[in-house]
Amino acid sequence: MERYRLVFSGSGGQGVITAAIILAEAAVLHEKLNAVQSQSYGAAARGGATRTDVIISDESIDYPKVIQPNGLICLTQEAYNKFHNIIRPGGLLITDTRFVETSRKVDAVQVEFPIYQTVMDKIGKPIVFNICMLGVVVKLTQLVKPESIMKTLEGRIPGSFLELNRTALELGMGLA
Amino acid sequence: MERYRLVFSGSGGQGVITAAIILAEAAVLHEKLNAVQSQSYGAAARGGATRTDVIISDESIDYPKVIQPNGLICLTQEAYNKFHNIIRPGGLLITDTRFVETSRKVDAVQVEFPIYQTVMDKIGKPIVFNICMLGVVVKLTQLVKPESIMKTLEGRIPGSFLELNRTALELGMGLA
Repeated sequence: MERYRLVFSGSGGQGVITAAIILAEAAVLHEKLNAVQSQSYGAAARGGATRTDVIISDESIDYPKVIQPNGLICLTQEAYNKFHNIIRPGGLLITDTRFVETSRKVDAVQVEFPIYQTVMDKIGKPIVFNICMLGVVVKLTQLVKPESIMKTLEGRIPGSFLELNRTALELGMGLA
Repeated sequence: MERYRLVFSGSGGQGVITAAIILAEAAVLHEKLNAVQSQSYGAAARGGATRTDVIISDESIDYPKVIQPNGLICLTQEAYNKFHNIIRPGGLLITDTRFVETSRKVDAVQVEFPIYQTVMDKIGKPIVFNICMLGVVVKLTQLVKPESIMKTLEGRIPGSFLELNRTALELGMGLA
């Protein structure tokens, strides 16, 4: 596989860091890939937009920071305004319909999904918003199998919450 | 301040990644410092020892990976065996008495604390083990003020758990 660089961006509390860690762990523990996951905080982070980077590859990864992502997910308007122009030409830009109004031209495939709205309509609780977002990403990028995400979740959350997470993941895959 | 490079290592479920993120966020949000926090997973990670890196500085940080940490925390024997020799000469190596038997010579200050035992004796629940460990680190390194850790926790966990976390943090500081 080619090296795939992802940036998830949004606001604190949307679970983007957790989603990035789950994706990285799924790739490493269940797909025999290598992954690096990082957060870089600076003056900008105090402003509001959270950003987390994941690189997945079947080769070893030396430099853990993403400069131009193949895939960029923006879950707030602020994150979109700030990061939309780092996308790699020809990359994939995913936004949430509820939180982001897309207005900029980018040299990438832009797709919008009602991720938040779907979670609220079908599940009624925002806590699995990040897992539904992962469903969209997994379906569109084919980076890891959905079962690898589920196996990773099994090691992290109580059994009683697994079904909720599975539903959210499948809703996201359905959207995509 | 001089740039400070930290590596937390242990096993999945001990909360080392969460602790690293909390420390990084405390430094950035409440101390006006810069921080980078990362996990690098590869073939080795499938073996067992979890490792997470944090760099804190008042200047910008270009390279987010830690090669030689100023501070290394090992919370399992496997993590200690694997990582003890990456410590920067003159650095600080912290281990948990219950989980690690120190046997190697390193050119560093080696300190052992009964972190796990203290949490179990005084609190009875292992879930704040990582926060108690952070208390040790904060006290020994003075990287951030304990109140900055608490303010970060306030934004992340329900109010009813804050006291438990405060107790764990203070227990750790007391140990150190």
